[in-house]
Amino acid sequence: MMQANHNYSRISDSYLFSTIAQKIDTYTQLNPDKEIIRLGIGDVTQPLVPGIIQALHQAVDEQASTDTFRGYGPEGGYDFLREAIAQHDYQEVGLSMDSSEVFVSDGAKSDIANLQELFALDSIIAMGDPIYPVYIDSNVLTGRLGEWNEELGQWSELVYLESHAENHFRPALPTEKVDVIYLCYPNNPTGMTLTKDELQQWVDFALENESLILFDAAYEAYIQEDGIPHSIYECEGAERCAIEVRSFSKKAGFTGLRLGYSVVPKALTFQNMNLNQMWHRRQSTKFNGAPYIIQRAGWACYQEPARTQIEENISYYMENARMIKEGLKEVGATVYGGDNAPYIWLKTPVGVSSWEFFDQLLEKVQVVGTPGVGFGPSGEGYFRLTAFNTRDNTEKAVERLQKYYSE
Amino acid sequence: MMQANHNYSRISDSYLFSTIAQKIDTYTQLNPDKEIIRLGIGDVTQPLVPGIIQALHQAVDEQASTDTFRGYGPEGGYDFLREAIAQHDYQEVGLSMDSSEVFVSDGAKSDIANLQELFALDSIIAMGDPIYPVYIDSNVLTGRLGEWNEELGQWSELVYLESHAENHFRPALPTEKVDVIYLCYPNNPTGMTLTKDELQQWVDFALENESLILFDAAYEAYIQEDGIPHSIYECEGAERCAIEVRSFSKKAGFTGLRLGYSVVPKALTFQNMNLNQMWHRRQSTKFNGAPYIIQRAGWACYQEPARTQIEENISYYMENARMIKEGLKEVGATVYGGDNAPYIWLKTPVGVSSWEFFDQLLEKVQVVGTPGVGFGPSGEGYFRLTAFNTRDNTEKAVERLQKYYSE
Repeated sequence: MMQANHNYSRISDSYLFSTIAQKIDTYTQLNPDKEIIRLGIGDVTQPLVPGIIQALHQAVDEQASTDTFRGYGPEGGYDFLREAIAQHDYQEVGLSMDSSEVFVSDGAKSDIANLQELFALDSIIAMGDPIYPVYIDSNVLTGRLGEWNEELGQWSELVYLESHAENHFRPALPTEKVDVIYLCYPNNPTGMTLTKDELQQWVDFALENESLILFDAAYEAYIQEDGIPHSIYECEGAERCAIEVRSFSKKAGFTGLRLGYSVVPKALTFQNMNLNQMWHRRQSTKFNGAPYIIQRAGWACYQEPARTQIEENISYYMENARMIKEGLKEVGATVYGGDNAPYIWLKTPVGVSSWEFFDQLLEKVQVVGTPGVGFGPSGEGYFRLTAFNTRDNTEKAVERLQKYYSE
Repeated sequence: MMQANHNYSRISDSYLFSTIAQKIDTYTQLNPDKEIIRLGIGDVTQPLVPGIIQALHQAVDEQASTDTFRGYGPEGGYDFLREAIAQHDYQEVGLSMDSSEVFVSDGAKSDIANLQELFALDSIIAMGDPIYPVYIDSNVLTGRLGEWNEELGQWSELVYLESHAENHFRPALPTEKVDVIYLCYPNNPTGMTLTKDELQQWVDFALENESLILFDAAYEAYIQEDGIPHSIYECEGAERCAIEVRSFSKKAGFTGLRLGYSVVPKALTFQNMNLNQMWHRRQSTKFNGAPYIIQRAGWACYQEPARTQIEENISYYMENARMIKEGLKEVGATVYGGDNAPYIWLKTPVGVSSWEFFDQLLEKVQVVGTPGVGFGPSGEGYFRLTAFNTRDNTEKAVERLQKYYSE
């Protein structure tokens, strides 16, 4: 008799963003005349840049002719893209990553969820808190993290690395034994960063304890200030303890094209098991590569004119971030992030929970954000706003938020 | 201390098709002047049809403009595609599948490998044998199927549903308890099919034993004869015991575009756990949908002119299949399949193993196929040839194969 995977019954039915979508639906049905501005889900709004569009058209034409048609590609990605990534994202900044350590995928979400297949089922996991819910949910569905404690809003066996204003969003090193550590910098959802020295402490801890770090660098392209690491491999010894995941989604507006990559260094070996070989085996067995035409678009990101056009889009979003942050400061709100990331992390007014704040903003000024507690217990009392809307909508949203605060 | 997933050490390093690729590489280096014809990997050779190319260009242009740009899409696929699939592949042939039972993905390989997350870790699995290696390897990497027995070429806890000439490629129903049954018809690698009555026996067995059937219908579009089910849902009660996986890869040449889908009926419930809801949760958590432009191409497959153009390509490949089968029969070889599938399943000469035959064909006539034993123990003594090459190469390959047999 077939037994279903009972880990699915351990987890609530709806994913954070589905819950938000439902709340918006309900509100819209009751208030069809109200125009909502969404600074919730971190989706881009600017279309693909001309250099990418051109590369896509060209790749489509290649698929129309027998001589240039491409069927199954290498599961880890075409060499032209793996080499472009290794060269431009690593070698050009003095890091020695090689193309066989780069694995192209259909996005950072899939990679973050699938990389857990590389470690043992009973691994002790530590995660930055608050954090992107996929890290937690994907582990629960596999049978990790213990039991859900509704009162604490915590999983019993997950080690939460608390980040909040009190510790300046720099979580303390774990005091217990942990096998795997999930870190994300620039951080989603707080928009905060670590310095290279601060990140080095995590690398040193992992090396000393033989832990693995899964480093999510999906927002690396938004770093504006010097001294903030773009890659964990800038830290000494990281190639012996860390996997890095990156995305084209936020960097180049590929949320609808689906492209990302993971770097799994050849030096990453635990008890004679080499993670580079294991990930190659995993991807070869369970994945068939990203589409050729999408990989060509990824390749074009590193060439002119797309390269400059992409930088202009990032500047556009970062100006939105600045406007939101300054606008909220003007009315006395406490805000974090937004300087090296497209996220603003807002402290909710005293006594107002994250979800209460969500409801109030929706009801009073029709602005949608994401409740901080949706990202974990340390997010309670915070709220995430994204810089990914258009300039016009961002301006309007700032006015509305200021109105909320002045009432 | 990080512990790697030790299931990775239970499985041989190289995937079947990688081993073949290495053998070809070695041969080519030693014989750079010899031209090899590949009837091995089941990859298409005809370019995408004009109707698909047009749809791709149009979708790319939509991504260039703010008004029509699409970022994150629904994880289970856009409604326009889910509805086209439900309508054309099911409702039009009298099956009541609804679009919310259709989940669009980046290909049948990913789905077949990922669907196992829906059932318990200690499930007893039965699989058609020979079979597409991904079914086995993906389960082993998760910790199922017991130990590998080198002598028998079998996994100790996998129930092999033997298919060979002696039982007319119709495996017997299991005599032991099984929880999950993997079936593939038209079959890869044998190219053989079941009648509707034969398939109904499997559905009846599954219903009686509360087993789940994973039905791989990736080659459905190649069925030429009447009376052969295109979908398992043609069988009475299948919506209560079966998931069906289909692909655009072989049907429409999407091996490089990456698009497939799984049908998970709402009626599919085991011990109060609903598999439709579970799969929705799985895909929402660990996947971000197929690219918008690729889904538009999938949609175009159901519209003219692409629909007719795709049928013409299938006829082209099926004529190749006929030529290979007839050509081999002429020289007295024993051949199966090829009538309703793009695969010809060839009995190797007496006393010649699958891999020996591979080596002989490569050495003597430079034709590459796939050793049957690579698909499982019942494949020993057989050899798979595909109809996916060009007409010219297929003609040349037939001549060379005939030469091999006449020497």
